[in-house]
Amino acid sequence: MKLPTLAVLLSLPACAAPTLMPLPATMTSGSGRLEINQTFRLALSGPSDEPRVHASALRLIARLAAQTGMPLDRSFAPDPTTATLVVSWTSDGMPVQTLGEDESYRLTADATQARIQAQTALGALRGMETFLQLVEADSQGFKIDGVTIDDHPRFAWRGLMIDSSRHFMPFAVILRNLDGMAALKLNVFHWHLSDDQGFRVESKRFPKLHEMGSDGLYYTQEQIRRVIAYARERGIRVVPEFDMPGHSLSWLVGYPELATSPGPFEIGRHWGGFEALIDPSKEIVYRFLDSFLGEMAGLFPDEYFHIGGDEVNDKEWRANPLIQDFIKTHSLDGSRGLQAYFNKRVQTILARYGKRVEGWDEVLNPDLPRNIVIQSWRGQKSLAEAARLGFQGILSNGYYLDLMHPASRHYEVDPLAGDAASLSDAEKARILGGEACMWTEYVSPETVDSRIWPRLAAIAERFWSPAEVTNVADMYRRLDVMSRRLDSLGLRHNSDYGEMLRRIAGPAPVEPLRALADATEPGKGYLRDEHRYTQQTPLNRLVDASRPESAEAREFAALVERIVATRGESDLAEARRSLEAWKANDAVLQPLLTQSFLAVEDAALSAQLASVASTGLEALRALETHRARPKDWVEENSAALEKMRKTRAELTVPIIPAVEQLVAASGERVGAPEHGARTKKKKKKS
Amino acid sequence: MKLPTLAVLLSLPACAAPTLMPLPATMTSGSGRLEINQTFRLALSGPSDEPRVHASALRLIARLAAQTGMPLDRSFAPDPTTATLVVSWTSDGMPVQTLGEDESYRLTADATQARIQAQTALGALRGMETFLQLVEADSQGFKIDGVTIDDHPRFAWRGLMIDSSRHFMPFAVILRNLDGMAALKLNVFHWHLSDDQGFRVESKRFPKLHEMGSDGLYYTQEQIRRVIAYARERGIRVVPEFDMPGHSLSWLVGYPELATSPGPFEIGRHWGGFEALIDPSKEIVYRFLDSFLGEMAGLFPDEYFHIGGDEVNDKEWRANPLIQDFIKTHSLDGSRGLQAYFNKRVQTILARYGKRVEGWDEVLNPDLPRNIVIQSWRGQKSLAEAARLGFQGILSNGYYLDLMHPASRHYEVDPLAGDAASLSDAEKARILGGEACMWTEYVSPETVDSRIWPRLAAIAERFWSPAEVTNVADMYRRLDVMSRRLDSLGLRHNSDYGEMLRRIAGPAPVEPLRALADATEPGKGYLRDEHRYTQQTPLNRLVDASRPESAEAREFAALVERIVATRGESDLAEARRSLEAWKANDAVLQPLLTQSFLAVEDAALSAQLASVASTGLEALRALETHRARPKDWVEENSAALEKMRKTRAELTVPIIPAVEQLVAASGERVGAPEHGARTKKKKKKS
Repeated sequence: MKLPTLAVLLSLPACAAPTLMPLPATMTSGSGRLEINQTFRLALSGPSDEPRVHASALRLIARLAAQTGMPLDRSFAPDPTTATLVVSWTSDGMPVQTLGEDESYRLTADATQARIQAQTALGALRGMETFLQLVEADSQGFKIDGVTIDDHPRFAWRGLMIDSSRHFMPFAVILRNLDGMAALKLNVFHWHLSDDQGFRVESKRFPKLHEMGSDGLYYTQEQIRRVIAYARERGIRVVPEFDMPGHSLSWLVGYPELATSPGPFEIGRHWGGFEALIDPSKEIVYRFLDSFLGEMAGLFPDEYFHIGGDEVNDKEWRANPLIQDFIKTHSLDGSRGLQAYFNKRVQTILARYGKRVEGWDEVLNPDLPRNIVIQSWRGQKSLAEAARLGFQGILSNGYYLDLMHPASRHYEVDPLAGDAASLSDAEKARILGGEACMWTEYVSPETVDSRIWPRLAAIAERFWSPAEVTNVADMYRRLDVMSRRLDSLGLRHNSDYGEMLRRIAGPAPVEPLRALADATEPGKGYLRDEHRYTQQTPLNRLVDASRPESAEAREFAALVERIVATRGESDLAEARRSLEAWKANDAVLQPLLTQSFLAVEDAALSAQLASVASTGLEALRALETHRARPKDWVEENSAALEKMRKTRAELTVPIIPAVEQLVAASGERVGAPEHGARTKKKKKKS
Repeated sequence: MKLPTLAVLLSLPACAAPTLMPLPATMTSGSGRLEINQTFRLALSGPSDEPRVHASALRLIARLAAQTGMPLDRSFAPDPTTATLVVSWTSDGMPVQTLGEDESYRLTADATQARIQAQTALGALRGMETFLQLVEADSQGFKIDGVTIDDHPRFAWRGLMIDSSRHFMPFAVILRNLDGMAALKLNVFHWHLSDDQGFRVESKRFPKLHEMGSDGLYYTQEQIRRVIAYARERGIRVVPEFDMPGHSLSWLVGYPELATSPGPFEIGRHWGGFEALIDPSKEIVYRFLDSFLGEMAGLFPDEYFHIGGDEVNDKEWRANPLIQDFIKTHSLDGSRGLQAYFNKRVQTILARYGKRVEGWDEVLNPDLPRNIVIQSWRGQKSLAEAARLGFQGILSNGYYLDLMHPASRHYEVDPLAGDAASLSDAEKARILGGEACMWTEYVSPETVDSRIWPRLAAIAERFWSPAEVTNVADMYRRLDVMSRRLDSLGLRHNSDYGEMLRRIAGPAPVEPLRALADATEPGKGYLRDEHRYTQQTPLNRLVDASRPESAEAREFAALVERIVATRGESDLAEARRSLEAWKANDAVLQPLLTQSFLAVEDAALSAQLASVASTGLEALRALETHRARPKDWVEENSAALEKMRKTRAELTVPIIPAVEQLVAASGERVGAPEHGARTKKKKKKS
């Protein structure tokens, strides 16, 4: 059994405000306390029995029952005056959800009733998510405190991209992530459906695409339709991406005639670029695309259609005399001009099917029509450039979830900051929002939820809430609550962690391994690209189980901040306890690691954590005894810690920066703390 | 972070044998080590492409991939000689799985291959479950050690009954529990589909049954067919129960003409008996049943059909002059004779539809045909009596999961023990096996998994394994492993525990509440019947979250056993740590309990745990210092502990018996332990 320390208990807000995420545009406390008990009834009041509102309201009742553990009447109240919650909306909205459709709502609650008023069905959906977050228990029962919320999104395009090509993500994974997205008021699911490593959609016109390009791992058209309907019910648009003319090896397995080189081709198994690509100089390519895109345009109702266009390796184009002739004949600007030509042809086809084109930075070309949307993976500079040229755009640079950065880092990225800050208002208006990207080279169906959640919630708040909402500590407080709420929606970021650690531990007890895992993080950035991975490589190591962001390390860093500032006794004691536990864990863990082949590689990492903790303890001793360490010692240990930043088994020890701070502080000559210093210390979570 | 104590680490077997549950009939270690890696391929070899074996083999590959975290080739090996696992069977088996169908299999493994050989497809399924349990990690990789297993079930009828009437259990709940059953080689799902509180099956012939008798909570016929197909693929028969002539209030809401009294009727909302019941003297009843049972006989393919027949309250029959005339006219033996008359008529109808009747003890009547199966909720005596009369029977008394007894208690109940032990061999052969019963008065979809699992695994072993398999400590060791494996199958007994505790804690941190919950258990037996519960009462209190069996209390009891026997120093220290933690928890928890209305009621329980722990610490002190407590002290404290056995908020403190043992021991004058006593101590888990 484990008891929370007093510090944990003290860090809790005495009287918690409701934990909302994303934070609404404005919120004012009202009076009264609306009891949420078994008399709860919901009434709908709109121009029609709009199916999305109807379905969402039924889900609200079911989720409220699950959240409170109370059986609830599942029928709607016939009379709004007697209902606990009235959901009203003025217009049912578009048959296909469109970009920029009104999502605003007003939510008011007093002692007798809660009311959601929205312009559109979509706004009603957003308000219902807020309602569920407002329900909390106190000593009397479940309740909502009197409140007025006026809310609307800051950006119209708030997306998540999931790459279903590198690793196929089963139907159920997609559905549960749509539930998570809806809870965070995200409104675009960008589905990366083809790439070198797999073509994931059933095509009835060109069945060799999925038959030969997917290893049997693809979505049937019926499943696609179900995903789209599921998303629509949650106020989410589905934008498909078929990446071309590069990243298209999986197409060429079944249809080598589309390729620049003669083939034959096999599905890509490793990561990084392949040279094979579509040949834009062949008319057959456009006949094929006309038919194929026509089929897909019918399957995916959204107005936007993503054609990829990123990272075209033009080596084969340059080596191909026919293509070089074509470039000359058409007076194109080399390979770049050839891709622009291709994009224009594709854009023309899609326009005929009523679609607007979206593409990655590389599709940007002044010759293209201005209704193309640019998705920037390169950065705010490239996005600002597009806006200046008159293109609309969304930001994805800074929101790559696969790079394992902390939520705070993504949270600080603003689509309208950086180069975009200097744009005119008209240009700024072209920046529609952003999209988090979940590339899946190193992500399996088992690990995908833990790479998306809970960090995506912080990004979702950046896209929805006012720009001024930037308090990182408060964001983390709410993120912890959201993480648990997402459990209840069926997301597996927390549950799979334990199961994976047990597998890695093998016959050994799991707790010491968990202690190590809790204090480590996967290496950041594109580190894993240095290794020899393929699509078949098992993702069952500690680096796969380990969370992108260690809560323990984050809390330890905050503790060290306080120690450096005030040298509080209880903080010093808490830091000592943590460091001693990390140090002691290694001795317990080492013999256990030898019992499982999946754990053997973690020996050096465990030793590294112990070594970092030892250094931390030595520095702490200096602070506790007010005896500064000599300069040599500080330099030596700082250098040693610097070296220990190196990954082991692709994992890092994220307490190193905080321990470096302790080491630096231990070299400073500081007297005993003034009397009263402890009362000045900041709260751990403010 | 939490470190395991050295005691926990020492208690682990140095070289673990594979953790099988249920234990097979015979198992012999062989030589060699079969590597299970990404080259794994499975080959099938049977008289046809039997759909169950085919589907189960595909699931085996998917589950092996999930278990190991390794992508595996999902196609079957064309050539058995190159396969890692060959599954062969001689006969495809019956189109509808029958009672007593051969389930035996032989599983052999050596360094090059594993082979499952079975007479029937069913045996192949059982062998595949064993195969998955054999795969374990060691320092080299995943592997199976050389082994020969010859296995067959002890009993032909190994069931679980789920009551879907008192609380409706959604489709998904049923499916995941079928997965759990299959993992434990259970073969009968007995589905209690109607009772006073709800009629749960769509009837096309009598739609008012489900329309008026279910609050809209029923299974469509399509869902029923899917459950049956899902069960068949897992080697599980589905036996439906429609309880009559008592427990039938929900039928009468839509069809009051079947009733003994005039009606109108409403669905039963509270628990315990209702007086309304079917009138066996009306011919209309048999015309109705003929048509209704004909429809259900077509829906449920199993040969057996359960007609309930339990707990008939004959008050209305006795008060009804027409019925009393009927009894006289037909020379029936009062109400008992009337029920036998009814059963015979129903049996005749069902026989015409090719069904054999099953019923609870009360249907037993010498006048009925001997092909009826008696399910005994009353006990072994009643079962033995039935067997002597020539009826087949199964035991459920002793296997009621809703009574919250420990797994060990169920494990010790043997269908062939007690009164059955004195039966002749021919009579014993009539005892077909047993069924665990999950009645759901106090069980919701959220809590049902935690009431079934993992305890059902112990009962499943009783039904499958040889009678000599009775080592309780070893059962618990394997039960812990099975519990985690069941997590991976999607069962929620572990995951819902945390979610419920967080809800109860409300705005307060959950850890201290969890510490309390870990050390408490729901009251045993029919205790909750004393309170005013209805179908609508929320089941969201600590008594609902709390596990039927506290692992902490069980481990503490084992520790105290050792202390009483040997007074080992490290055992004393460990007991002190546990008792101190329990005692200290109360002070932390009390202020937190006031923050949530769902937790307020647990204040007395927390205080009680602290008080028990205090007494334990005082007793421990006497043992540590070798100074016996005076007799008065022992008596006083024993009496106080006895009083504390009383439930608080319907929960008990299960460490009381162990603390009572400590108190008793503290009164005995014992010298310091002999030198070497510590080395004599039994291992915690042997």
